[in-house]
Amino acid sequence: MIFLFLLVSHESVLCFVPLGGCKADWRPSNSPKLIDLLDDTVPGIGTYEDFNTIDWVREKSKDRDRHREITNKSKHSTVALLFSISDAFSGWLLMLLIGLMSGALAGGIDIAAHWMTDLKEGVCLNGFWFNHEHCCWASNETTFQERDKCPQWKTWAELMVGVSEQGSVNVLNHFMYVSWALLFAFLAVILVRAFAPYACGSGIPEIKTILSGFIIRGYLGKWTLIIKTITLVLAVSSGLSLGKEGPLVHVACCCANILCHFFTKYRRNEAKRREVLSAASAVGVSVAFGAPIGGVLFSLEEVSYYFPLKTLWRSFFAALVAAFTLRSINPFGNSRLVLFYVEFHTPWHLLELIPFVLLGIFGGLWGAFFIHANIAWCRLRKNTRLGHYPVIEVLVVTLLTALLAFPIEYTRMSSSELISELFNDCGLLDSSKLCGYTSNSGSTSGSVNATAANGLGARLAGPGLYTAMWQLALALVFKMLITVATFGIKVTDLDVFLKAKQNIRAQASKHFFFFLISTLGGVTRMTVSLVVIMFELTGGLEYIVPLMAATMTSKWVADALSRESIYEAHIRLNGYPFLEAKEEFRHKTLATDVMRPRQSDPPLSVLTQSGMSVEEVERLIADTTYSGFPVVISQQSQRLVGFVLRRDLVISLENARRHQEGVVSVSAVLFTECDPPASPSAPPAVKLHNILDLSPFTVTVHTPMEIVVDIFRKLGLRQCLVIQNGRLLGIITKKDILKHMAQMANRDPESILFN
Amino acid sequence: MIFLFLLVSHESVLCFVPLGGCKADWRPSNSPKLIDLLDDTVPGIGTYEDFNTIDWVREKSKDRDRHREITNKSKHSTVALLFSISDAFSGWLLMLLIGLMSGALAGGIDIAAHWMTDLKEGVCLNGFWFNHEHCCWASNETTFQERDKCPQWKTWAELMVGVSEQGSVNVLNHFMYVSWALLFAFLAVILVRAFAPYACGSGIPEIKTILSGFIIRGYLGKWTLIIKTITLVLAVSSGLSLGKEGPLVHVACCCANILCHFFTKYRRNEAKRREVLSAASAVGVSVAFGAPIGGVLFSLEEVSYYFPLKTLWRSFFAALVAAFTLRSINPFGNSRLVLFYVEFHTPWHLLELIPFVLLGIFGGLWGAFFIHANIAWCRLRKNTRLGHYPVIEVLVVTLLTALLAFPIEYTRMSSSELISELFNDCGLLDSSKLCGYTSNSGSTSGSVNATAANGLGARLAGPGLYTAMWQLALALVFKMLITVATFGIKVTDLDVFLKAKQNIRAQASKHFFFFLISTLGGVTRMTVSLVVIMFELTGGLEYIVPLMAATMTSKWVADALSRESIYEAHIRLNGYPFLEAKEEFRHKTLATDVMRPRQSDPPLSVLTQSGMSVEEVERLIADTTYSGFPVVISQQSQRLVGFVLRRDLVISLENARRHQEGVVSVSAVLFTECDPPASPSAPPAVKLHNILDLSPFTVTVHTPMEIVVDIFRKLGLRQCLVIQNGRLLGIITKKDILKHMAQMANRDPESILFN
Repeated sequence: MIFLFLLVSHESVLCFVPLGGCKADWRPSNSPKLIDLLDDTVPGIGTYEDFNTIDWVREKSKDRDRHREITNKSKHSTVALLFSISDAFSGWLLMLLIGLMSGALAGGIDIAAHWMTDLKEGVCLNGFWFNHEHCCWASNETTFQERDKCPQWKTWAELMVGVSEQGSVNVLNHFMYVSWALLFAFLAVILVRAFAPYACGSGIPEIKTILSGFIIRGYLGKWTLIIKTITLVLAVSSGLSLGKEGPLVHVACCCANILCHFFTKYRRNEAKRREVLSAASAVGVSVAFGAPIGGVLFSLEEVSYYFPLKTLWRSFFAALVAAFTLRSINPFGNSRLVLFYVEFHTPWHLLELIPFVLLGIFGGLWGAFFIHANIAWCRLRKNTRLGHYPVIEVLVVTLLTALLAFPIEYTRMSSSELISELFNDCGLLDSSKLCGYTSNSGSTSGSVNATAANGLGARLAGPGLYTAMWQLALALVFKMLITVATFGIKVTDLDVFLKAKQNIRAQASKHFFFFLISTLGGVTRMTVSLVVIMFELTGGLEYIVPLMAATMTSKWVADALSRESIYEAHIRLNGYPFLEAKEEFRHKTLATDVMRPRQSDPPLSVLTQSGMSVEEVERLIADTTYSGFPVVISQQSQRLVGFVLRRDLVISLENARRHQEGVVSVSAVLFTECDPPASPSAPPAVKLHNILDLSPFTVTVHTPMEIVVDIFRKLGLRQCLVIQNGRLLGIITKKDILKHMAQMANRDPESILFN
Repeated sequence: MIFLFLLVSHESVLCFVPLGGCKADWRPSNSPKLIDLLDDTVPGIGTYEDFNTIDWVREKSKDRDRHREITNKSKHSTVALLFSISDAFSGWLLMLLIGLMSGALAGGIDIAAHWMTDLKEGVCLNGFWFNHEHCCWASNETTFQERDKCPQWKTWAELMVGVSEQGSVNVLNHFMYVSWALLFAFLAVILVRAFAPYACGSGIPEIKTILSGFIIRGYLGKWTLIIKTITLVLAVSSGLSLGKEGPLVHVACCCANILCHFFTKYRRNEAKRREVLSAASAVGVSVAFGAPIGGVLFSLEEVSYYFPLKTLWRSFFAALVAAFTLRSINPFGNSRLVLFYVEFHTPWHLLELIPFVLLGIFGGLWGAFFIHANIAWCRLRKNTRLGHYPVIEVLVVTLLTALLAFPIEYTRMSSSELISELFNDCGLLDSSKLCGYTSNSGSTSGSVNATAANGLGARLAGPGLYTAMWQLALALVFKMLITVATFGIKVTDLDVFLKAKQNIRAQASKHFFFFLISTLGGVTRMTVSLVVIMFELTGGLEYIVPLMAATMTSKWVADALSRESIYEAHIRLNGYPFLEAKEEFRHKTLATDVMRPRQSDPPLSVLTQSGMSVEEVERLIADTTYSGFPVVISQQSQRLVGFVLRRDLVISLENARRHQEGVVSVSAVLFTECDPPASPSAPPAVKLHNILDLSPFTVTVHTPMEIVVDIFRKLGLRQCLVIQNGRLLGIITKKDILKHMAQMANRDPESILFN
């Protein structure tokens, strides 16, 4: 008994070597030289490999160290003080730049797409760079119908064969329309394939994954930005059913990522950069819809993983700057921030809630179906030969779209024009059939006066209105179907739903609008952000309660059918390591059930804090593929000292072999800070204390997995060590957790591809 | 060396007793009897004492266990299945009830306050329960001025002395006005003192603290609800400068807390109840301003501590129901959700941004000054004899307010009336001087027609307008000053600023509005939520960019002067244990610097997993005041097994002494699950394995405090154990962290009063 006591005390003395022996050197911050060395002379340490997950805790620690160092230096010299101040404001400056750049790009995209869409139908003789509206701006014609047909604007048929018999003109126009569409689509798909494969798709699933801490190098690079911007214009112009929301979020994130390179604070720190990217996704939505607050909420509700209040304020600022820039560019020519300003004037009645809620239910059902169909299609494309011919696929879809779209006036328009058509008030200069005026001029002026007096609600429906409505409904359904079929294609998105939210003119079509909103809610599972976007887009303050009711119902219904939004479904389809924050982990497994090694496996590969040679460590690295190794006091006691990452270890050993004199295979590798007594003849030891993480996260074997999952989610961990009574027993990585969750949900655990 | 090895292995065998020995019994869920026992037969275990902090992780675990148990049972019988379904929907049902109750109460408060405010000036002869407006509703008078002076409505002077000379009437009216105000204020303060001391104050600082995990019993009880509702009406009616925002948030939280008692899920679980309370604060703001989305954002940005997406959606739903209920009650008689619907019609110009930003700066400065002045006043009241006479203080303030307020028409009105006056469009039936019509009827009808044609912007300012504007500005400044002086008083709040946001009629006074918004931003440091509330309140979609610019500037300026919002300043003044989530911990201390025991202190009080007797444990409890004890394998090895809470330990030991046969002082206390071999003559052991937390949170001594603070914040811990190389060295509690933070910020660490 006494022996035991003595020896236990002896062991505890051993354990305490760092505590007793070199206490003064505990804090990493007391050895600034080491940190500088770490940052500067051994490049690569503290960085991550492609398709890996970052360690949020470590990144945030690094940033705090950096900040402290700057603050400390600032007390000594004026230059350092100025640097410290500029560092403090660099976050806001970066936000300003992102806002300006994204706003400008979005404005440019709007203008270019508008011009190229018109180019499909004809060209302006005054200058080919004018779009239809600008071309006819200075026209002298005063009647509505004539104004759109100004002599400066020629359709392709008029230009080529002159004004002749109606039939051949139509055929020729149709042919040119289809040809241009095919050309645009072909250019878009070729550009994406040749220069920036990452520019394909909506981009939101990937951005969501990146924001959760994953690394996809080049996804937000300059080539992606350039190609995505160009192809967005091309794809919108080609008439494919897609919106700008997703691509613009991607574009804004690319801007943010590129601009981050000019600020050391953000270039070097993956966690800080993700805060900036969260704000950038708010900017994307802000410029897509002219809805800055909706953008912030979209980032919060739908995209972001880690969204502290500081990021909220910065997003708010960046979204504001972007919206302001866009407004200054004024691509819609109405000097308003919002695309289409509409007011619902009539208060709604209590009973109306019933149809609204019913529409919410239908929308939710349709949304769930949409996700299902879309994923099924994408999976088919992924698993069969269908996916091998993307260029042909895009061209076929474009051809079909263009062929079908041309005959009906409303499908021929771009989404933006369609909305304008539906949304803008019937004014004196409006030639839309939806306004339904009779065309003889005498009765026209009378009806306009009557309308102005009676307000929107009391407008008389002209004979053309019903035809127009019917065509419109067909156009919208057509766009929706096309969207289902093409979601996975290179450049496409969802907000055709969002954009087709109008026809508020006629009381009956309000219901159609609610159905579309509900569908969007069912597809993306947005609630608050969707209502706010609608709110900002239309100014429909009166309808806030019905809108909330419809979106909430839609979310409930869709959630009851499947828990995943379209973005999450795509994340899962691609096997990204995304730890969903919405759903709680409900199973009663313990950490011991998930940790590696399993009971049948060989024991955990660990390093000891002293006593291993360079050769032994290198052999361990070569034999295993783990991305990190725990360091223990000794193989016998398995008492945890710290954790070292494989990448850091490899780089440091290579560096030591190359630059440190006298390091040979039998040199000792030391993770302690003070040298153990060694014989003077021994080769110099490799000291790796500076790459050792002395505060690894630990849980006990008894910790329920629900708590482990919670810790991983909230702290953004990469791995966590499992101990029992002070002994190291195993390790749990993010991938282990995701695999375990997949297994518990009866899915294939091997679908989780990345670490 | 071999000896060491052998004995180390021996020790590790010891450590593994629970793992090897009774592995089957590891999981608490495998022993449902024990859990039932825990829940039912030993009341008090798992609950908290007053003025203590909850352990979020433990509470959430408890809820998941509960949920799992219900899910498991539901597979066996239909009744259990039905129960399981009702349990799943109980959260939404609760939200529905909270929305209905809060909406109804808010409607009642509005109506009652309106009536009692009018009662100060006169009474209706048709029935004393009619307010001025309802009384004159049926009046036959058609001119504007006459309509307000219908014969059914008598001022007190008219009633008592009849219509006689002007001077004495005015004096008598003034006297009655002051008397009623004093009576209302006296009633309010007496009710609060006698029945519900917690009903005092704005309530938001305390609710913020409660949401962060603190327990203040009775703060959200039924008495507080009843008294707060009554006194809110009384205080508003007495003419004190206060708004409904804070008190209505408090009222909604009381409703939520009371309704929680009807749902086991929420009654028994402090963490789940806080989720409901977060939603309730959204409801409070939703009914205070008729701004459901603003309410949700207010809860997110300003009040809540833990706000997952699930709570976001529920808040959204509850706020929706409440807004809908309020609208159905229709206290403002305009069948609109919003109090005052205003549209800014003219687009703003770029240059206008400069004054808006300047106003933001002034607002921020004024807000920071307000906080400073208010806190200084409250501290004075707290530390001197001034605070001993609250009744007199309230009466003096009421007397002064009433005396000063009566002469000017605008200060005499209640805040709500003032806003109506400022906000509503000048219609045909409006008698407001601010509309500035000349009073002869011929020109009136002419000007009305002209106005209707020209829209709001082009309205000609009548001669009365400037006088009215001047009086109005005076009234607003007066209300603001009064609010500074009285913030700490029993029932008061801030949103007089918010409510005084108008006079958009005249272009110049738009700037006054922006100043007020900025001030509110500076005081509360809200940004997104403030803009959205404004947005919902006024429909001012056009002005979203300037509003964002002004609030953001205001926040920056105010933050530069002091980091705390008014609510946080009050929390600190009261010494509540609130771990601020906004500000990062920037110092470079380590866990070892903060943990107890300090180096000079006696070693940590620990329990051993076996080998202690009941008497020894009881002595340890009696000798210390710690709220929990770590359990280790043995005093020598200090290897951590788990953590046990003092309260649970005391209750369990008492229970064992009382109910378990043969337990005496020398009985062994066992925290292991399997009995160690004991002599048959020994008294039966007390087994306390079920109260032992086997997965306590641990950090190493090297862990930087910034990470520890982060863990505490994000996971909501109460305490955390500090280990080094598997040996338990110390403990860090939330109070330790707060004291450390206070020390680092050069504040008195003893100002943190609670644990």
